[in-house]
Amino acid sequence: MSTNTVVTLNRTIPSGAPTLQDFKVASGSAPSKGELKTGEILVRTLYLSCDPYMRGRLSGRTDSYVASFEAGKPIDGLGVGVVEASASSDFKEGDMVTGPTFKWATRFITSAAGLTKIPSSSGVPPAYFLGVLGMPSFTAYVGTITLCKPKAGETILVSAASGAVGQIVVQLAKARGLRVVGAAGSDEKVQHIKDLGADAAFNYKTVKSLDSAIKEAAPKGIDIYFDNVGGEFLDVALKNMKPNGRIAECGMISQYNATAESAYHIQNLAYVVMKKLTIYGFIVSDYYSTPAYSEFINEVSGMLKENKIKYKMDEISGLENGPQALLDLFEGKNFGKRIVKVSEPSHRL
Amino acid sequence: MSTNTVVTLNRTIPSGAPTLQDFKVASGSAPSKGELKTGEILVRTLYLSCDPYMRGRLSGRTDSYVASFEAGKPIDGLGVGVVEASASSDFKEGDMVTGPTFKWATRFITSAAGLTKIPSSSGVPPAYFLGVLGMPSFTAYVGTITLCKPKAGETILVSAASGAVGQIVVQLAKARGLRVVGAAGSDEKVQHIKDLGADAAFNYKTVKSLDSAIKEAAPKGIDIYFDNVGGEFLDVALKNMKPNGRIAECGMISQYNATAESAYHIQNLAYVVMKKLTIYGFIVSDYYSTPAYSEFINEVSGMLKENKIKYKMDEISGLENGPQALLDLFEGKNFGKRIVKVSEPSHRL
Repeated sequence: MSTNTVVTLNRTIPSGAPTLQDFKVASGSAPSKGELKTGEILVRTLYLSCDPYMRGRLSGRTDSYVASFEAGKPIDGLGVGVVEASASSDFKEGDMVTGPTFKWATRFITSAAGLTKIPSSSGVPPAYFLGVLGMPSFTAYVGTITLCKPKAGETILVSAASGAVGQIVVQLAKARGLRVVGAAGSDEKVQHIKDLGADAAFNYKTVKSLDSAIKEAAPKGIDIYFDNVGGEFLDVALKNMKPNGRIAECGMISQYNATAESAYHIQNLAYVVMKKLTIYGFIVSDYYSTPAYSEFINEVSGMLKENKIKYKMDEISGLENGPQALLDLFEGKNFGKRIVKVSEPSHRL
Repeated sequence: MSTNTVVTLNRTIPSGAPTLQDFKVASGSAPSKGELKTGEILVRTLYLSCDPYMRGRLSGRTDSYVASFEAGKPIDGLGVGVVEASASSDFKEGDMVTGPTFKWATRFITSAAGLTKIPSSSGVPPAYFLGVLGMPSFTAYVGTITLCKPKAGETILVSAASGAVGQIVVQLAKARGLRVVGAAGSDEKVQHIKDLGADAAFNYKTVKSLDSAIKEAAPKGIDIYFDNVGGEFLDVALKNMKPNGRIAECGMISQYNATAESAYHIQNLAYVVMKKLTIYGFIVSDYYSTPAYSEFINEVSGMLKENKIKYKMDEISGLENGPQALLDLFEGKNFGKRIVKVSEPSHRL
């Protein structure tokens, strides 16, 4: 029986900085095929993702849309792994899978539901499925390509353009021959957006007028607006849309902490009629089971092979170093997308 | 050479009630085939439409989205006719056509652009193309069917449900097995909506709370909202949409006369993200050249033949009676959709 390393949470941390002492890294015996119930699979973990949202899950809060970790139990998150045994008709031994229900363990048993099979034809390193081929990138693909159907020569505006989603929107749109205008909240981020290939970018916090900044960057108007922020930015964007424009409504982060008093009220929605706009609200999880997912994998894999897309990874080796890797992320010590390598993909592939 | 009757405007009427003396009905010689320039057609008029918006065109105003009539010239509007001669590759002799550029004349020459060919397979009286098969009905079809793709068992909410567009939305949706909720601004209109088959209807002017009225009429929420009014009604509808709901954005009449101060500001747009809603702004003229137009003609023709759609027509005979027919409309003396019969369709069909 093989050894299994597991990362467990010792205590929840409602506030303040978590420390190494809040985690336990222990070894025991691995789960075996015989323990599988119908619909379950035994997964060997290859890579785990360290994400900012996990800080909230360490807090013990019960009022969030994502469940907190429990003291005394293994933590979990996004991961990539190989199916070692299956009691589900959806997966067979050797399949590579990804999803948000990966235990921080070398091997674990989980319900097959919620995991997605990675096409064996992808031809890119499996770690990329937590990075450039991961959920934020697919979000960018669904909003930009699947829903807004961009045409070469059109102009796209992206808010939060340096973020995990935004930077892929910029590069996907640029690759398709669009004029790309990005906005972000610091000069460093604006520079990053330009480095990714955007034709124009501005710092929305320092421009005198959002309306003038958009008009200057896109004198002919906006065909597609990829919205990550909502609020005033969306309102001004509505005013600057061209007839038949499309808006991918990915998020409204400017409004999530707003109170009834501070919430921004939209004034320009009548342009939806006057300019024949379409607004697409969407959630990426609805699209994994559609043809859009393999289209995304194919298109972005191709861009990777031809070096046409930039995405910085930051890999830490060994599950025993997982807690420190996560704590460092909360301190901003990562440079690029941080992942933990748990085992070698080549072992069974 | 055949005789041609033409209705001319004597003077523009900026305000007050127009009278018969403001029009001239005169006979002269008809235009002939030899006068056609490339791209033009010679049309014999069958029916002309009397519409409320024509009052604005009598005013001489120059700031409207639709051009005013000019003193001393024939008036024009929506009509149905037969092509008697063509110098356009889009039409041939005998084609039946409809569109908004019909001169109020027995025969006239016009650019082929802007007119639409009526499929000869429609098998319904040509006058219907100014009524149940006319532009407001096609607007209802595009928003409800083409864009929102309704499924049996879903719930649709329609504002201004007794209007030219709304009453067709109600009947199209009902025929497709949806639960239909209509809203209008008088008890008579509410009764009319129920007579058309709506499952629930309310007077939005007299309900205590719009939110409660919608919740009571649609306890499980709204899958499709067909918006004719915008403003507060749209805002409350957003709140009551179900996940994956669709909004057909046909008009925002409540906001068209709003000033900067009185304009309603939308508070609930974040539901577009949270509920994955799609909002479709559209203008019907974009859809005449798409497959939606023949789908509409086929579906509604079929409903007509099976007596599954109600639409009241009010026909006046003779172009010489056209001015009075129009004046009566402005006084509300019509009962149903008012049209003027100019010549017999059977003559050439």
